[in-house]
Amino acid sequence: MRIFEASTAPNPRRVRMFLAEKGIEMEYVQVDLLKGENISPQFREKNPIAKVPVLELDDGSYLSESMAICRYFEALQPEPALMGKTPQQQAVIEMWQRRCELYFMNAVGMCFQHSTGYFADRMKPVKEWGDECYTGAAKFMHLLNKHLANSTYIAGESFSVADITAFVTVDFARVIKLKMNEEYTHLRRWYDLINARPSARA
Amino acid sequence: MRIFEASTAPNPRRVRMFLAEKGIEMEYVQVDLLKGENISPQFREKNPIAKVPVLELDDGSYLSESMAICRYFEALQPEPALMGKTPQQQAVIEMWQRRCELYFMNAVGMCFQHSTGYFADRMKPVKEWGDECYTGAAKFMHLLNKHLANSTYIAGESFSVADITAFVTVDFARVIKLKMNEEYTHLRRWYDLINARPSARA
Repeated sequence: MRIFEASTAPNPRRVRMFLAEKGIEMEYVQVDLLKGENISPQFREKNPIAKVPVLELDDGSYLSESMAICRYFEALQPEPALMGKTPQQQAVIEMWQRRCELYFMNAVGMCFQHSTGYFADRMKPVKEWGDECYTGAAKFMHLLNKHLANSTYIAGESFSVADITAFVTVDFARVIKLKMNEEYTHLRRWYDLINARPSARA
Repeated sequence: MRIFEASTAPNPRRVRMFLAEKGIEMEYVQVDLLKGENISPQFREKNPIAKVPVLELDDGSYLSESMAICRYFEALQPEPALMGKTPQQQAVIEMWQRRCELYFMNAVGMCFQHSTGYFADRMKPVKEWGDECYTGAAKFMHLLNKHLANSTYIAGESFSVADITAFVTVDFARVIKLKMNEEYTHLRRWYDLINARPSARA
């Protein structure tokens, strides 16, 4: 198995953190996004959506979508559980993972792309939409800080994939100059807790 | 248990179809989105993201995010499996579910909101972004048609939650006047197959 990825992009980092938490070794192959290697016909055969990361399985097939890759390894090697054990834990983790992804990570990503024109060779940046996404991401950060006043981790009292998504996004948010403000003491407490895990360096 | 939802919205329909496939009875409570019942402080206590559907559990807690609700019932009642059994099946279904959701369903939803100003009282519609989303959704429909030339269902040879997301989105796409064009014979074959299931009426 090996993973095609881009080491500086947030989605591949989620998968690297997930695998580090599981203690799973992996071979990584870099794809140059700025040069457009991911939008080449060769890469589209691996993933028609043209995004990284992509996992190549030993049977020669390809798996894409970060959370699908994580779910594959969660099923292959359930311990330590990062997606919950009981039905309710699984659902609460999925709920928070999706909230952090849809309303925070994706908002930061769209703000970055639409505000900077980073991928203007392959998409049409809409500045006004980038601004809306910034507002959305900032609101979610506020909500997250409030939520973490009563919860050790994002989805309860255990570390989970929801923490990975939120942590990677807080770091990634620097590219749009969205920072944890000093009043966000709960978010800061949680950030330092996650940042102390060896997987944060993955 | 009961679910707060809006019967005409696409996300609640995904959950109703999922539960119908499982044969699980449910009580549904309607929330008036146009009147803004979902953005009231009372509703935000159920779901701070202010979206439907929301599942109220018997312990008084709330679960939101359609796919988290579906995952809860998949874990509670694994048969019939709609999210895969083996690690690889689970991952492939998750990959296609996410592709259909992120690049099709969400694109149609954003096109609708940004082009029509349907929720202009609570968000800022960006017409140009709505147009981009239309283009993205149309491209994904094209990709889906090609994919279905070689696959009975979206994620292989079994019906899954990925079919639910794609099917609900094809229907929902009428609101942005995006239709299956006549050349999309594979997509049409698949649509008729899913539409013949009793759950399509849920």
